[in-house]
Amino acid sequence: MNNPDLKKRIAFIEELEKLKLVYRQNVAVDGSRQENSAEHSWHIAVMAIVLHRYSDFKDLDLLKVLKMLLIHDIVEIDAGDTFLYDNEANKSKEADESLAASRIFGLLPEDTKNEFISLWKEFENRESPEAKFAASLDGMQPIMNHYLSNGKGIRKHKLKTGQIIEKKKYIADASRELWDYAKEVIDKSESAGLYSKDE
Amino acid sequence: MNNPDLKKRIAFIEELEKLKLVYRQNVAVDGSRQENSAEHSWHIAVMAIVLHRYSDFKDLDLLKVLKMLLIHDIVEIDAGDTFLYDNEANKSKEADESLAASRIFGLLPEDTKNEFISLWKEFENRESPEAKFAASLDGMQPIMNHYLSNGKGIRKHKLKTGQIIEKKKYIADASRELWDYAKEVIDKSESAGLYSKDE
Repeated sequence: MNNPDLKKRIAFIEELEKLKLVYRQNVAVDGSRQENSAEHSWHIAVMAIVLHRYSDFKDLDLLKVLKMLLIHDIVEIDAGDTFLYDNEANKSKEADESLAASRIFGLLPEDTKNEFISLWKEFENRESPEAKFAASLDGMQPIMNHYLSNGKGIRKHKLKTGQIIEKKKYIADASRELWDYAKEVIDKSESAGLYSKDE
Repeated sequence: MNNPDLKKRIAFIEELEKLKLVYRQNVAVDGSRQENSAEHSWHIAVMAIVLHRYSDFKDLDLLKVLKMLLIHDIVEIDAGDTFLYDNEANKSKEADESLAASRIFGLLPEDTKNEFISLWKEFENRESPEAKFAASLDGMQPIMNHYLSNGKGIRKHKLKTGQIIEKKKYIADASRELWDYAKEVIDKSESAGLYSKDE
């Protein structure tokens, strides 16, 4: 194959295989293994299709939301998945992920590279309605997963309910109704002993 | 939560966890485990964003392509993943998947249920440019995966190159250039001993 544009796109697509090997703190729902960032990205993309009418923003660009959700974790191929509640690890997250974005999106031809870097930054900074809504789903799926998997991946971290609320309350910036639902799930998880009550 | 529409959407989203437990014949690229249908769906959705300009159709609706790719395998939660080269198992595939579509998409409120059933049928029947292009990526990713993983999941099936070509040649209906590339990968895989030459 002699098409340099296609060659670069194929190299990027091959690289994507590695996101299937980035494992998260959450588990598959039967508890058999850790969840990986590729299947997590799929899950929240389908959530966007199913839930976008619950966004508090008018005229959300669903295509843009899907693109963001599908590519937002690709930087983890180099930077790894940083556990949201690990404040120490989160200090270097931004720098690590910026380097990763340059290398991995840099495999692509200029136009798509620029599009992906710009989508990724917009998502990370929660700058637009699309980014705020996409981020809210990325924040909500783990809460649902904790409860469904009976906290198998999460109990060992001994999280307090207040920590969860503090890290997830931005969901309300995109959808009051989804945040109300998320708080119900957090309450059920606390009652089930997955998180401990704040003193 | 007292909103019956949201309740149904949430039940569907919870159900999606099970697609992460549907394992395919292909493997994760390091050979450590089988690939599942959720991460496969993510991979081909990103491929659509990166490769849609290589479609031979003008003015492809990328949002529709992404929706199709993200939901096309959900029926496997009930029907399982049917190995493309298993002709016996493929006889009951259509009936099994139709039942599965009714049950799983039936968890959703009427409007989204109808949208998903219609997208899924359009994809399965390769009726539209979007369906043809989406199907071509679904056909191409396993070929790339075979080569990248050195045939770890596939060698035991002792496939012949002619079988691969026969099952995959429809890629050319969506993109001549991607089919030319796919044939190169098939050739490399044959040379590496993943498939055997036809007599």
